[in-house]
Amino acid sequence: MRFSARGHDVAIVDNFLRRRYHTEQATDSLTPIRSLHERAAAWLELTNHRINTHVGDINDYSFFEPIMIEFRPEAVIHYGEQPSAPWSMRSRRHAVETQANNVLGTLNLLFAMRDHAPECHLIKLGTMGEYGTPNIDIEEGFIEIQHNGRRDVLPYPKQPGSFYHLSKVHDSHNMNFACKVWGLRATDLNQGVVYGIETDETRLDDRLCTRFDYDESFGTALNRFCVQAIAGHPLTVYGIGGQTRGFLNIRDTLQCVELTAGNPPPSGEYRVFNQFTEQFSIMQLAEIVQRAARELGIEVQISHIPDPRVEKEEHYYNAKHSKLAELGLEPHLLSEELVESMLKVIVKHRNRINADAIMPKIKWDPERSKAPITERV
Amino acid sequence: MRFSARGHDVAIVDNFLRRRYHTEQATDSLTPIRSLHERAAAWLELTNHRINTHVGDINDYSFFEPIMIEFRPEAVIHYGEQPSAPWSMRSRRHAVETQANNVLGTLNLLFAMRDHAPECHLIKLGTMGEYGTPNIDIEEGFIEIQHNGRRDVLPYPKQPGSFYHLSKVHDSHNMNFACKVWGLRATDLNQGVVYGIETDETRLDDRLCTRFDYDESFGTALNRFCVQAIAGHPLTVYGIGGQTRGFLNIRDTLQCVELTAGNPPPSGEYRVFNQFTEQFSIMQLAEIVQRAARELGIEVQISHIPDPRVEKEEHYYNAKHSKLAELGLEPHLLSEELVESMLKVIVKHRNRINADAIMPKIKWDPERSKAPITERV
Repeated sequence: MRFSARGHDVAIVDNFLRRRYHTEQATDSLTPIRSLHERAAAWLELTNHRINTHVGDINDYSFFEPIMIEFRPEAVIHYGEQPSAPWSMRSRRHAVETQANNVLGTLNLLFAMRDHAPECHLIKLGTMGEYGTPNIDIEEGFIEIQHNGRRDVLPYPKQPGSFYHLSKVHDSHNMNFACKVWGLRATDLNQGVVYGIETDETRLDDRLCTRFDYDESFGTALNRFCVQAIAGHPLTVYGIGGQTRGFLNIRDTLQCVELTAGNPPPSGEYRVFNQFTEQFSIMQLAEIVQRAARELGIEVQISHIPDPRVEKEEHYYNAKHSKLAELGLEPHLLSEELVESMLKVIVKHRNRINADAIMPKIKWDPERSKAPITERV
Repeated sequence: MRFSARGHDVAIVDNFLRRRYHTEQATDSLTPIRSLHERAAAWLELTNHRINTHVGDINDYSFFEPIMIEFRPEAVIHYGEQPSAPWSMRSRRHAVETQANNVLGTLNLLFAMRDHAPECHLIKLGTMGEYGTPNIDIEEGFIEIQHNGRRDVLPYPKQPGSFYHLSKVHDSHNMNFACKVWGLRATDLNQGVVYGIETDETRLDDRLCTRFDYDESFGTALNRFCVQAIAGHPLTVYGIGGQTRGFLNIRDTLQCVELTAGNPPPSGEYRVFNQFTEQFSIMQLAEIVQRAARELGIEVQISHIPDPRVEKEEHYYNAKHSKLAELGLEPHLLSEELVESMLKVIVKHRNRINADAIMPKIKWDPERSKAPITERV
C-alpha cells in the first residue's frame, strides 16, 4: 500500500503460509485482517490504485517464473518467509519446512532475477537474530578483521538462535554469492523486533488493517505484553529478562523499506542494513508496558517464567544501526504514550483474545527447559 | 570397509544420488565400480564381516527414522551429500536440489540423533571451500576476534564459492546450533581436495574398487589431470592457475575419519577439523603431473582455459590444519612417484575414458566467462 500510494505499480505474490499456520495452531490475528482480495479491492475503491495479486508459492517455479517474466520488477520486497523462531522449533517437520520454504524460495527468486530481471533490486527481510549475542559490537553485515598481521573485511560471523534464524543466515550467504557471481544487487534488512499496530495506510479504512499477532509463535515481545496486559494476564518475561534486542515501530519498517528502495546499491553489491531504532531488554519492555497500563488504570504483574529458548538471559549487546539513519530514517521512538495508544486499540478487540495462545508451549530443548530459572542462570 | 575391518558393526544408507547424476550427465567412474550390494557381498566373502545396506533417502524420514531407531549408531559418518560445485551451478534445478538434499538431509539426521541416539557422534564431511579465499589465515572453524576493545571467539566467516559450498556452510551453522541447543556432539571435517585411487581395503579385490571420477562435475583437480595426461589431452588449468587449495591422499581421508571417530568431542561440542595435508596451486599440480608423465615417456601439454568459475585466480592462502595432526595423522604426501602409480592404474582403464567429459561446460556466470583471461585477471 505504501508503494502503491506513491504511484508505483505493485504486484503481490502470496502463498498464505502464515494464515495456514495460524489455522494449524488454532490461533489468529488480534485484528480482524481481511482476505488479500478484499484488502486489494478496498484499496482500489479508496485510492483508485490497483494492486495485482498472485496466489501461489515461489517454490513452485512454474507458477513464479511467468510472473517475473511478465512483471519484470524494478525491486522485489521479499517478505515471503516463515517468520517465526518458535514455529521452526516445534518439530522436525516444522524445522525442515521452514528452511525449505525460506532458503529454497529465496534461491528461486535469485535465479528468476538472474534470468528475467538482472537489474532488479532485491530488498530482503533479514533479522537481527542472525547475529546472536556476540561479546563484541555487532556491525552491519561485514566486519574488518585483523589477524596474524593481515586484515580483511569479511561477512560478520553469525550465531543464529533457531532454525528460523538459521534459514535467514543461509539466505544471506546465498544472496551475497548471487550478487558476487551474477552481478545482482541486494539489500538485506536485518530487522529488529517490530511493534505497533497501525500505519498511515491501514488507518484509512478498517478493511485495510494488517495483522497483529500475539501468540507465542507469530507475536513479538512488546505486542504480546500489551495483549497480556489487556487480558489481565501477567507479562510473561522469559527467564530473568536481560535478553537485549533491537526494536522498531511498524511505521519505521515501512520508512526503512522505502528509503532502501529509493537508494539501490550498484550492480554486484550485497549490502546489509541493521533495521532497528532502539535497544531494550525484555525486562525494560515489560516495565514500560506496566507503567503505560497503570496510566490507563490497569494493574499489571510481571511474571518470570522458565525461558523456553536456549539463549543467554544476560549478555553484552551493542549493535550498529547507522546506515538507514544516514539515508534519512526519522525514528518513531518507543514511549509510554505509544504503548497507551496500542493498549487502547487492543481494548477494542479484547473479545478476540484467545487466552490459550498466551503461554509458551514450544521448547527449544525439552530436557533443559525443565530446570528452574535459578539453576539455569 | 575400514571400520568393518576393525570389527565395528557398520550400516550403510545410500540413495545412489551420484550414480543417478552420472546417468543424467552421461558420464561414469573411470574405475568400474560395482553395485553396493555386490561390493558388500564381496566384502562378506573376503572378510566374513557383514555390512548392512539400506537403499533410500535420508530426506524420506519415514524410511530413515526406523533405521536410526533400530541401529542406534555410536557414530554417523555423513557422506550423503551432493558433492559437486559445478553440478550445483548447472541450473536453478540443480542448485535447489543440491541445497534441499544436503541441508534438509542433514537436518533430518540431526533430529533423528536428538530423538534416537543423543550420545552419537556425528562426523560430517565439510569442505575447505566453505572458507573461500580470505586475505587472512584460515583457522579451524572458529576465530578469536578483537573488535573495539572487546574480544570473542566466533564462527570463522565463510565465503563459499558455489551453491554446493554454500550448502555445506548452511550445514555447519545448523550443526553448531543443534550441538548447542540439544547437547549433541559433532565434528565437521572440512576436507581439502582428495586425490588417489586405492585404499588398503579396495586393493584386496577388484570387486571392492571405489569410484574414480574425472568428469568436470565429480572429478577433482589432480585426478582429472592424470586422466587427461593418459588421454593425450592438454591439462586444463582454469585461468592462470594460481588458485591454491588444500589437498590430501584418499588414504589420509580414511585415517582422518578413523582418528576423529576414535576421539569424539564431549556432549554439546561442535568442532571443526581442517582435513588436508598440503597446499598446492592448480599450476603446481599440473606441473607435477607433467613431470610424472614424462617419467613414463608421456609428453603432456598444459593449457590455460577460461576459468568457468567466478573465483580469484591468484590470492593469499594459508589454512591451519593442526588438529588432526595432533590426533596422530601421518600424512601420505604428494610425490611424483605417487602420481606415476596413479597414471599406471589409469592406463589399465584407458578404454573407459570418455573424451566428451573432459572439457568444462558449466559456467558460474555465462556472461562473465566469455571474457578472455587477461581481461578478467
